Amino acid sequence: MGIILDSINSPEDVKKLPKHKLSTLTEEIREFIIDTTSKTGGHLAPNLGVVELTIALHRVFKTPADKFVWDVGHQSYIHKLLTGRRDSFDTLRQLDGLSGFPKVTESDHDHFNTGHSSTSISAALGMALSRDIKKERNKVVAVIGDGALTGGMAFEALNHCGHKQNTDLTVVLNDNEMSIGENVGGLSSYLSRVRTDPKYTKTKEDIEFILKKVPAIGGPLFRSLDRVKDSLKYMLVAGLLFEELGFTYLGPIDGHDFNKLEEVLKQAKKTSGPVLVHVITKKGKGFSPAEKTPDKFHGVSPFDKTTGIPLAKKKKTFTDGFSEALCDLAKLDEKIVAISAAMTSGTGLSKFATKYPQRFFDVGIAEQHAVTMAAGLAADGLKPVFAVYSTFLQRGYDQVLHDVCLQNLPVVFAIDRAGIVGADGETHQGIYDISFLSHIPNLKIIAPKDEKELKDSLFTAFELKCPVAIRYPKDTLPVTDKKENKYNKLPLGKGNALTTGDDIIIISSGATTNNCLKAAEMLKNKEIYATVLHLPFIKPLDDDILCKYIKENSKVLIVEEHTAIGGLTSLIAALLASKNIKANVNSIALPDEFIPQGSRSEIIERYGLGCDDIYDSAKKIVIKENSYENKKKVGSITS
Amino acid sequence: MGIILDSINSPEDVKKLPKHKLSTLTEEIREFIIDTTSKTGGHLAPNLGVVELTIALHRVFKTPADKFVWDVGHQSYIHKLLTGRRDSFDTLRQLDGLSGFPKVTESDHDHFNTGHSSTSISAALGMALSRDIKKERNKVVAVIGDGALTGGMAFEALNHCGHKQNTDLTVVLNDNEMSIGENVGGLSSYLSRVRTDPKYTKTKEDIEFILKKVPAIGGPLFRSLDRVKDSLKYMLVAGLLFEELGFTYLGPIDGHDFNKLEEVLKQAKKTSGPVLVHVITKKGKGFSPAEKTPDKFHGVSPFDKTTGIPLAKKKKTFTDGFSEALCDLAKLDEKIVAISAAMTSGTGLSKFATKYPQRFFDVGIAEQHAVTMAAGLAADGLKPVFAVYSTFLQRGYDQVLHDVCLQNLPVVFAIDRAGIVGADGETHQGIYDISFLSHIPNLKIIAPKDEKELKDSLFTAFELKCPVAIRYPKDTLPVTDKKENKYNKLPLGKGNALTTGDDIIIISSGATTNNCLKAAEMLKNKEIYATVLHLPFIKPLDDDILCKYIKENSKVLIVEEHTAIGGLTSLIAALLASKNIKANVNSIALPDEFIPQGSRSEIIERYGLGCDDIYDSAKKIVIKENSYENKKKVGSITS
Repeated sequence: MGIILDSINSPEDVKKLPKHKLSTLTEEIREFIIDTTSKTGGHLAPNLGVVELTIALHRVFKTPADKFVWDVGHQSYIHKLLTGRRDSFDTLRQLDGLSGFPKVTESDHDHFNTGHSSTSISAALGMALSRDIKKERNKVVAVIGDGALTGGMAFEALNHCGHKQNTDLTVVLNDNEMSIGENVGGLSSYLSRVRTDPKYTKTKEDIEFILKKVPAIGGPLFRSLDRVKDSLKYMLVAGLLFEELGFTYLGPIDGHDFNKLEEVLKQAKKTSGPVLVHVITKKGKGFSPAEKTPDKFHGVSPFDKTTGIPLAKKKKTFTDGFSEALCDLAKLDEKIVAISAAMTSGTGLSKFATKYPQRFFDVGIAEQHAVTMAAGLAADGLKPVFAVYSTFLQRGYDQVLHDVCLQNLPVVFAIDRAGIVGADGETHQGIYDISFLSHIPNLKIIAPKDEKELKDSLFTAFELKCPVAIRYPKDTLPVTDKKENKYNKLPLGKGNALTTGDDIIIISSGATTNNCLKAAEMLKNKEIYATVLHLPFIKPLDDDILCKYIKENSKVLIVEEHTAIGGLTSLIAALLASKNIKANVNSIALPDEFIPQGSRSEIIERYGLGCDDIYDSAKKIVIKENSYENKKKVGSITS
Repeated sequence: MGIILDSINSPEDVKKLPKHKLSTLTEEIREFIIDTTSKTGGHLAPNLGVVELTIALHRVFKTPADKFVWDVGHQSYIHKLLTGRRDSFDTLRQLDGLSGFPKVTESDHDHFNTGHSSTSISAALGMALSRDIKKERNKVVAVIGDGALTGGMAFEALNHCGHKQNTDLTVVLNDNEMSIGENVGGLSSYLSRVRTDPKYTKTKEDIEFILKKVPAIGGPLFRSLDRVKDSLKYMLVAGLLFEELGFTYLGPIDGHDFNKLEEVLKQAKKTSGPVLVHVITKKGKGFSPAEKTPDKFHGVSPFDKTTGIPLAKKKKTFTDGFSEALCDLAKLDEKIVAISAAMTSGTGLSKFATKYPQRFFDVGIAEQHAVTMAAGLAADGLKPVFAVYSTFLQRGYDQVLHDVCLQNLPVVFAIDRAGIVGADGETHQGIYDISFLSHIPNLKIIAPKDEKELKDSLFTAFELKCPVAIRYPKDTLPVTDKKENKYNKLPLGKGNALTTGDDIIIISSGATTNNCLKAAEMLKNKEIYATVLHLPFIKPLDDDILCKYIKENSKVLIVEEHTAIGGLTSLIAALLASKNIKANVNSIALPDEFIPQGSRSEIIERYGLGCDDIYDSAKKIVIKENSYENKKKVGSITS
């Protein structure tokens, strides 16, 4: 750590610091953050960009009385450092450690939990309206990136703020010209013009010059001048778009210049009504590998501090398998197009985007638009695939139902990060998609267990000519025989008995089946023989195979890396009830609570989903050890 | 009908019509629409506003080759009339009749189904991108109201269009200064300035005047002029906000002037890239009651054609009961605040808004923002209630989970129109909310059956200090004894046996229980005695009472006006499976298909949810008529 950073235990300490020490503090903070994230992984580049901004915010405002809402929240590390969390920073994103996002349970200086994008202005406006109702006087500040600003709900909030001219609120636009990757959209081009176009920066002086000269001319020109002056506001202000929506616009200013930052934030603080402060920052600032390729350093796994190269060797993932299959299939079918919502690299679309730029669309952080645009593409005869993390598809739930499935349009949802996500924790878990998708008519849901099935799933999805969701985890991909390069159509709604045995029926879907198979193998050593039923289709469910194997009093163990309510467990329970099959049903699933951060394996272990746990649970069910009672936290259906 | 309208059987006929006959056609159309909706009910005012616009669109563009996407779609009646559906127009919004929204299954001239707001630009962009990939040349036009433009996904789409400068697309902004009620937000104020403010309309001539005079002055002024000219675009254009996002802006023009409409639409047709045509219309035009109070005539039930007064006498509804309870409770607790997303009147918030204007927020069509703003209000200590239709809460699913429930914030969701909605049909059914809410940790879900329970639900929700959803149907409210004005706290997660009998256990929640009670009464005549279990809490479910009554081989009938998958049926099936209770479980619920339009009672009858059907089903289960087999379509769990 650094000498100055060591002395900062609260925002008060930041305030007291003489100005000439600030630059040393920023260096110490950058070093500290690079050092920590090189070990823990984390959102490196976004934090390096907001060191000066965060310090300036804490020097001008006074938390916890004043409130900051960090949009997405991955840029809150410096805020955490300055608010008493320096000493626990090495637990960042670890099991039971500091969150990588703001958490009200961590500190009085955190006022709103974030994780998903574009929520900050809404939350901040709520707090500001509440303050006014309670006749309090604190300030509320939302800090939002230019990427997050493309999310529709941020615009909904801006629009509403513009309506609330008597409500004081500061929105800091942290403009680093990036989403996670390159930012897209008309708004992005607009901001870019504001930053650089002489039409914007020169106009002010030109007009002022004319105004000084023109009055001398007199006559009718002079008379029209008042009206012109009135309207000049609309020409002089760089952030006219925001002014039009009802904001006072301040900026753009250099987000690494303390003097300018403090000056403009102080001005914002004393300005009435909604204010937007436009701050230009450099993502990854101070770490040259991150400055060069900020997208690669947006979220990092542990890396070499000098070179920036990741320490762990990358293994082939489900994402990679999807990426390969998509390119393979797109080569054969020109109708296949792909959509990303600012997640091109994360969802494995980079290769497709390079090969087929005309057929690839990055829509920005805009999942709702992505889904409905996909519906439009499909309505016109194309075969769109929207690759998206499970947790972010939550944003498009209504559009999946209303725009895609209601018209039975052949849109493929490639749902990545389905299941436990690891270090990002509770805001990002992909454990609800079966619950929020399985009740939607016309939609099919596939969960492949390995490379072959993953690739066949995508092939099948394009063949089915209806909406299809394919879900797969953030995990290494069990690689299957490479010789068989042919894509096969999965039989619709059919499951498979991968092993057969009379003692217990273990049922699962997706990659979880691999753990079940290992557990079944282990059970053999105890002379317990399990039927492992694998269901690549969660919808339609294979009623036939389930009813064939599950008889009166069968011992059944359902295993799923998903919340129990509305998951596979519920679907099977409903089937059995409808068929009046009275089996002994047990389940290992995630309980009705938010699931915290930790490595994938730690969380899987904690919730009893590892193969050892499946083995233990199955054994207990079979040898009737007074029914299954796991010491671990598991889902609701446990007998 | 009218003589000219009678001769219009396709858009070609509209094109051929000489201009001098257009005004008669508009009169005939208005008369026809007023006449029809006075009998069928429907979206009267929005359609009266777009008569000229729709005719002009069909004269300039050529469907079905060119494609129109009608945002929300309630303004598509004239389009339907002009595209061959005049003769079936009397079936509008009736069971098996014409839909009140565009439906691709109805006509080749309908290209995308709509119903929810703000989807049109996304869908149209998808179609335009598809056209370009296929190297076709048709035009795509999205028609969107100024209200719908406040929905975030419309902005996401605008932003993406701005990025696609080579993609031809026309967005017609139908600006009637209204959402369903008065429009709100910075954007609305902006549009209003564009329409009326001399700063916008005068600037152009002022600046041109100066420019003519100034060159004569010479010198440095002259040199700076080129730059000034460059930047004048940003001052001269009324729709600068759209220009900034990358659109060519045309307008504003009078949406009831055929010459101007056709001129500007032709211009749009030949302009490259994204174009926004700003058309000013008058909602309700041509029917004086609707012109005076267009909000009251947005959606109407059958009315008197002369006075505009509704024919049916209004009975007290669940909405009314909620409205009363909210005002009662708000009187006692200043922390209670209420939020509407452009549905103040429909959700019963008008009285609250009048009584407590400082504590009421209409955020516009912006459900995502509404939910997260509610989270912000709650995080700061207030008690917000967001009153919203079930179908529109689908838009806020992620925010309910991520912003409200993850922080366990005490936001109350008053979910109106939960269940069958009637004439609006499949896009608006409120039959998914249990499925998309019940798996969210921390959230409680209440479904009251009558006035007393409804009011107690709201009281309880404010007491619980956690997220609570209260769902109730679009239906008359079973009124309870008025003398007891006291509000009582419902015991958390407790159900009640309203009748007891040994032959069958009928289980339901919410208003459906009333039909079950009637059925139980009817069953007595057959000497069949039913236990009716009423579950005001869907979550937490009353495991105790369910396990107390449901024994091995009990005959059980679950009844719910909700889709079976993920509904009450699934929740109870999962409970029974987890407890290894092997009962004979039957269910009447909605099947896994989209549920069409029709009156509430017709649809309830069609799906076997009326008291006669419940009676029949229960009787068959009890007298073991070879297990329950209903001729009607019912949900998945039927034995």
